[in-house]
Amino acid sequence: MIEFNKKVLNAGEVNLIDFIGDDLSIVNAARVSFASQENEITDKSIGLINYLIKNKHATPFEHVVFKFHVKCPIFVAREWFRHRWSSFNEMSMRYYVPEKIDYFYPDKEDVRTQVGKPGAYSFEPMKFPEAAHSELTRQFEIVYSTAEKAYRHLLNIGIAKELARSVLPVGQYTEFIWTVNARSLMNFLSLRNDENAQLEIAKFAFEIEEMFASILPSTHKSWVENGRESI
Amino acid sequence: MIEFNKKVLNAGEVNLIDFIGDDLSIVNAARVSFASQENEITDKSIGLINYLIKNKHATPFEHVVFKFHVKCPIFVAREWFRHRWSSFNEMSMRYYVPEKIDYFYPDKEDVRTQVGKPGAYSFEPMKFPEAAHSELTRQFEIVYSTAEKAYRHLLNIGIAKELARSVLPVGQYTEFIWTVNARSLMNFLSLRNDENAQLEIAKFAFEIEEMFASILPSTHKSWVENGRESI
Amino acid sequence: MIEFNKKVLNAGEVNLIDFIGDDLSIVNAARVSFASQENEITDKSIGLINYLIKNKHATPFEHVVFKFHVKCPIFVAREWFRHRWSSFNEMSMRYYVPEKIDYFYPDKEDVRTQVGKPGAYSFEPMKFPEAAHSELTRQFEIVYSTAEKAYRHLLNIGIAKELARSVLPVGQYTEFIWTVNARSLMNFLSLRNDENAQLEIAKFAFEIEEMFASILPSTHKSWVENGRESI
Amino acid sequence: MIEFNKKVLNAGEVNLIDFIGDDLSIVNAARVSFASQENEITDKSIGLINYLIKNKHATPFEHVVFKFHVKCPIFVAREWFRHRWSSFNEMSMRYYVPEKIDYFYPDKEDVRTQVGKPGAYSFEPMKFPEAAHSELTRQFEIVYSTAEKAYRHLLNIGIAKELARSVLPVGQYTEFIWTVNARSLMNFLSLRNDENAQLEIAKFAFEIEEMFASILPSTHKSWVENGRESI
Repeated sequence: MIEFNKKVLNAGEVNLIDFIGDDLSIVNAARVSFASQENEITDKSIGLINYLIKNKHATPFEHVVFKFHVKCPIFVAREWFRHRWSSFNEMSMRYYVPEKIDYFYPDKEDVRTQVGKPGAYSFEPMKFPEAAHSELTRQFEIVYSTAEKAYRHLLNIGIAKELARSVLPVGQYTEFIWTVNARSLMNFLSLRNDENAQLEIAKFAFEIEEMFASILPSTHKSWVENGRESI
Repeated sequence: MIEFNKKVLNAGEVNLIDFIGDDLSIVNAARVSFASQENEITDKSIGLINYLIKNKHATPFEHVVFKFHVKCPIFVAREWFRHRWSSFNEMSMRYYVPEKIDYFYPDKEDVRTQVGKPGAYSFEPMKFPEAAHSELTRQFEIVYSTAEKAYRHLLNIGIAKELARSVLPVGQYTEFIWTVNARSLMNFLSLRNDENAQLEIAKFAFEIEEMFASILPSTHKSWVENGRESI
Repeated sequence: MIEFNKKVLNAGEVNLIDFIGDDLSIVNAARVSFASQENEITDKSIGLINYLIKNKHATPFEHVVFKFHVKCPIFVAREWFRHRWSSFNEMSMRYYVPEKIDYFYPDKEDVRTQVGKPGAYSFEPMKFPEAAHSELTRQFEIVYSTAEKAYRHLLNIGIAKELARSVLPVGQYTEFIWTVNARSLMNFLSLRNDENAQLEIAKFAFEIEEMFASILPSTHKSWVENGRESI
Repeated sequence: MIEFNKKVLNAGEVNLIDFIGDDLSIVNAARVSFASQENEITDKSIGLINYLIKNKHATPFEHVVFKFHVKCPIFVAREWFRHRWSSFNEMSMRYYVPEKIDYFYPDKEDVRTQVGKPGAYSFEPMKFPEAAHSELTRQFEIVYSTAEKAYRHLLNIGIAKELARSVLPVGQYTEFIWTVNARSLMNFLSLRNDENAQLEIAKFAFEIEEMFASILPSTHKSWVENGRESI
């Protein structure tokens, strides 16, 4: 059975908390007229889903809606919020001081270097992975602890939360609720569960694609077979 | 108990076919952080909903989503589809020829005249309502039957459906699926369940507002008390 | 020189009335930082445009904006208004009674029949084009004149404009202002200047693509070479 | 004369780099039909703008489009990018390492404390402004320099830019291009040039409102007189 609550990165998670619709409701949205509604997925309705994906008849996929809770680093959230055809509510550090703040640390196998020229970058493992990982971890720890110490100190002397947070790094974890329809989600997955995406957001997108495939198996299959494109 | 399937006008209907969320999920979207989720609506959470409406903190309302099936005249659908922050699938007369086409006829009490100047129009009953209603009905019948006869004839001689439909009047009924979140729905209700809206779309909006109030009672109460504005 | 005012169909037109941006501004939006702005299009900047199109980095194209005036049949406008990432203002028959109403008639070579099965329709010329064209014209004339006569008569006896218009057919011409960015416009052209689109909207889309190509030549060239897809 | 390039905060700026439309084009969008276009703003057209604002007939304002270049701290950009009905291109720290990074420091008179309860917060000057300002500056300097040193060091040992940036604080300045229509801009100004907004984004919104008022004087006047609301 698919799990709808997954851990991602060192302290992140993605949880599917609600959704409406399934493959059948996409077929029925495409048919519209009540006279021609179907009660179960048949070969013919799978054929229709293929036709819709292939010909980019995208609107029937907008009637399936997913609602997620996400916890991820700010630099990941910044990319996520660029997806405008969806709804977000994020915790606000203007009003809220977390008792414990989580920070991003990559696993050893994810510490990487960037090679190539603009427009043709790729990422490769470090030559000395152990050393690189421990040096990166040490540097991250220094900055994160310096920043948090300054942040707590500024709060203690009465500085407004919204000002004090200026020193917190984009590696800090944040949380948000995300509501998105299946069309917009396919666009997200096409761009973010992709080798050109930053690895850290791709790890979230990978888990979300598993959930998507579990809820809309015929749609997902057809979308993959047609190249995983935005429609 | 509220009914989620309502007849509107002489041959129209609006049916709520699915939704996610409730007043509580709005409160929890506003709180975001899992640490502070609530399990039931309390006075404090109603206070939060009031605060959100009053201060136009609109995004928490986007996580409640409604899916309707609507059957209405084309001139009503034309106004409906102007609401861009929502999803539509309409039956297409490019491909589909209804066995029986329904057409709009107003009830006697809804036949009206327009008075006033641009920017300050209002609508009043006709002086001779019986006569006006029967003359309007007679004229509508003449046009509708002439149009349908020509339409069927052109199909019979092989003209493409998408061309033949040119003669069908905007009083023809159409059908569509509409998925919309609670924020966008409040915008729709603010503009369309309003005395400045055309009466025919207002009748649909009235029924939809009843359903909205039934599913989100605290939100609806607060929204009405704060002036029924777009947020 | 390109013309930005073109006649389309028997009584329609499309006019480009304003725009901001050019190929260079797309390049500069992609580079963002003021430090790296360019002053003229070079081979390198054309390479960047190619890269953006190919990799579906779509947002730089959103900063070029076009504003059109369009006059087209209602059934064409109905398809046009489905493009939600754009802005429309249409003349309203709730308040406005045109002195002279224009109606759609196809040219002889555009009268066509529909062949094939759902999902695989195509369109072919009629067997007897002369006869089909004159019969279609005759039928259209009967309905249009019957509808207009009823419409004017109902206005004369005092019926509100918004009610009387119910009898007017979707072949009636309407007018609107359309503001759209280059990304959303490419989506429109991909779907509507296409053999699967209805011929009547395709004729408008064809003229608009000429204007688009004239203002953004490098973008258009790259978009065509990469398959004319939505990005 | 209005200036379209303004310095904001210690190292930020906002520049209007292009726009289309004026008060007159709003009037003409509302009138739509070419037959009724006007050539200059008259008392009657100002009356129409008032009517549109008052009755929230918002679409005519969507045909005026502004394009800005903005340089602001990341925590300001994070709020800015929540405005989805607009287009953004931001410099990317995945690919780009600024030679010199700017960081946010508030002026002495803007160092503030937060008083009150959730839902009713307000901000007040510090009791000892000199001391608070110098302590805040000292703390910010410590974190910013620690973060930048770690960032440059990690780049030097070959860590990918997109990973190394994790340590940079949200007080870092970023740059973006923003294209937005006048309707969406009024929504932005209503929420952000407001005493409930964070002071740092309000300072940008204030300068933008000056530019808006200069380009659309009649629209701005009417919007202010009607309560500066989202429409």
